[in-house]
Amino acid sequence: MDDINARHNEKMRKIKAARDELMKTKKEKKGLIIVHTGDGKGKSSSGFGMIMRCIGHGIPCAVVQFIKGNWQTGEKKFLRDRFAEECRFFVSGEGFTWETQDRERDIAAAENGWQIAKEQILDPEIKFVLLDEINIALRYDYLDIDEVVDFLLTQKPAMTHVCLTGRDAKPELLAAADLVTEMTLKKHPFEDGVVAQRGVEF
Amino acid sequence: MDDINARHNEKMRKIKAARDELMKTKKEKKGLIIVHTGDGKGKSSSGFGMIMRCIGHGIPCAVVQFIKGNWQTGEKKFLRDRFAEECRFFVSGEGFTWETQDRERDIAAAENGWQIAKEQILDPEIKFVLLDEINIALRYDYLDIDEVVDFLLTQKPAMTHVCLTGRDAKPELLAAADLVTEMTLKKHPFEDGVVAQRGVEF
Repeated sequence: MDDINARHNEKMRKIKAARDELMKTKKEKKGLIIVHTGDGKGKSSSGFGMIMRCIGHGIPCAVVQFIKGNWQTGEKKFLRDRFAEECRFFVSGEGFTWETQDRERDIAAAENGWQIAKEQILDPEIKFVLLDEINIALRYDYLDIDEVVDFLLTQKPAMTHVCLTGRDAKPELLAAADLVTEMTLKKHPFEDGVVAQRGVEF
Repeated sequence: MDDINARHNEKMRKIKAARDELMKTKKEKKGLIIVHTGDGKGKSSSGFGMIMRCIGHGIPCAVVQFIKGNWQTGEKKFLRDRFAEECRFFVSGEGFTWETQDRERDIAAAENGWQIAKEQILDPEIKFVLLDEINIALRYDYLDIDEVVDFLLTQKPAMTHVCLTGRDAKPELLAAADLVTEMTLKKHPFEDGVVAQRGVEF
């Protein structure tokens, strides 16, 4: 047992040394373009988790919800009821697009959301902006991907982080991003006839 | 343009009809075993996003952090400073295992965390329990995977949700889970020499 522990501790020392060496090279701080995509859960939740971190650190932040606008989500209640000061919360769109069945209205809502998003990103007071489900609006070409990417690369303040979520992120956005995570569904209770539940799904 | 919109709206009507039909079969509600794994970001953040949802919905919840115990994370500050009433927060472990270099101490910390976790899961007042980074403790066999899975399957109250996070989730846990999401790293700023930053990484 002592032998196992000794070998483990030596291995851990080596990993720590290698990691410390790696981290010596990590000096730059910059505002990141962060993308959460894929067909799995956690794209929006991890974006809201980062908002929670920002509030915890006292970093002023903003959220623009592009698609889930008609859902009374826990996040919306939570942020609007408790954190109107720390986090600005905006809703664009009128629910998932297959709920609206009105393309022109969806386009107008997406464009409205993008105008708000640009204002928040350009606001020097705001350091982190979550564009929740904007990838859905981009996927349906409700927004021009080239305009969005150009804005992020050329007009976003250097130290401002922007997190864009939603499945089917466009290749142009992935190419522009600093940090891309794909959430992949491996197993889902819907398959077993379980309904969406508060706290878990919304 | 009207033609494009008409086709789009018809397609959306069909998707909505198919989805409504599918959802008719989703009647069951149950406490889920949720796993966030993979080498990408968002495993912990999306767990904390679900905690935010629970607080927003007034669902009593608890967090046990197994590995990041020595990190002053935004989540910890946030929950401890603002939500001691709504969310119980416990820290086990003394930081990432390669930081401690002491296997026996890590095992003791993991076992302590698991005791707390079982108490919170069994507490009828608590409906959602986040076991953050427990997969790391399981991966190093600091905890017995069979005991953990057996507890979740046989002793977890039927309506209580438990979310377990961390890379390299064990196959036994994946088999027992209702909902599994794998977060995959596609692109990371560390590759470009960017240091971990508040709000984004921790």
